[in-house]
Amino acid sequence: MIVTKQISLKTQGNCDIVDITPQVEQKLAETEINSGTAILFIAGSTAGISTIEYESGLVADFQRMWERNVPQGIPYDHDRRWGDGNGHAHVRASLLGASLVVPFTGRRLSLGTWQQIIVVDFDNRPRSRQVVMQIMGE
Amino acid sequence: MIVTKQISLKTQGNCDIVDITPQVEQKLAETEINSGTAILFIAGSTAGISTIEYESGLVADFQRMWERNVPQGIPYDHDRRWGDGNGHAHVRASLLGASLVVPFTGRRLSLGTWQQIIVVDFDNRPRSRQVVMQIMGE
Amino acid sequence: MIVTKQISLKTQGNCDIVDITPQVEQKLAETEINSGTAILFIAGSTAGISTIEYESGLVADFQRMWERNVPQGIPYDHDRRWGDGNGHAHVRASLLGASLVVPFTGRRLSLGTWQQIIVVDFDNRPRSRQVVMQIMGE
Repeated sequence: MIVTKQISLKTQGNCDIVDITPQVEQKLAETEINSGTAILFIAGSTAGISTIEYESGLVADFQRMWERNVPQGIPYDHDRRWGDGNGHAHVRASLLGASLVVPFTGRRLSLGTWQQIIVVDFDNRPRSRQVVMQIMGE
Repeated sequence: MIVTKQISLKTQGNCDIVDITPQVEQKLAETEINSGTAILFIAGSTAGISTIEYESGLVADFQRMWERNVPQGIPYDHDRRWGDGNGHAHVRASLLGASLVVPFTGRRLSLGTWQQIIVVDFDNRPRSRQVVMQIMGE
Repeated sequence: MIVTKQISLKTQGNCDIVDITPQVEQKLAETEINSGTAILFIAGSTAGISTIEYESGLVADFQRMWERNVPQGIPYDHDRRWGDGNGHAHVRASLLGASLVVPFTGRRLSLGTWQQIIVVDFDNRPRSRQVVMQIMGE
């Protein structure tokens, strides 16, 4: 059995990190599927998806890591060519990855106690985003 | 319903980035599956898989990020031990990841408009590569 | 057909890298599923999952990459706030990712010859870990 859902969210861009665990849980609860996997995919090339212990300290630490390793203030060919100013956002998104799978049993996601599902929006402006959630199971 | 396909490609190695979206779409079109998920996995330990806006500026920007963060010109125990000269390629591949999942509905992949599926071959020589594509759906 | 298994392991923490390929193969062999995908997810926010050529040189090279790019010895807001001393571990885990999918056919995982499945435990102390393995197929 396969059910496809859309999770819509608004972000501030600029490495905004949004906890989408409540939406994922809600979409799962809307189905009759007991056991299976939630497949999450973010459309777009300047955002990624992962998990984190969602507390403001770590949110800032994760943002700082991106600024250290894939800085905004260095030259990008993408910006030179297209003038978008978001070359760093694309590179970060490709490194983080666009997909995540989270199994569930007894209608409960197999997340750790301090583990939330996040969208990281690297773009240089506020964005509306769509996460495709596909629930496969029985 | 599950269908397994192989996508074969040749790369130049040395951080060659290959857009495999056309092959993924073609393999999907060969099936009768309407809605589901394309699971992509690259066999081998010196290549990875992700998505990017596939234009030459970003391809160069992504390659430069790898050279900055996981440089070729530093000592690797792997090279010291085995003389392969591709220690950096292994480390990059483990960081990027070997798998990606992309949902589809109405026989269309849920990619963003400017989002392509890529294989990044980090090895230090041209390679033939196999991507396993498994299509699960109904 | 969906089967859910648990892989339990003990780690040393501190970037301990554990090859779980034998356990994944054993759990797969316990099922009757011939062709499908093994979905792997690690619960917890200070460990991640990936693949590597599992030899001691690369294990050390991969650990060194983490120390270079997401160092232990810099200030983390998480540590300042909670005193856990494992801020770096959380950030590394979010970057590496908590999930991996590996297709299989003829009851054999589609891994490359020199490609093993690993859990990387970034936490700053020994831990007991649970990997949820979901096998979907027919």
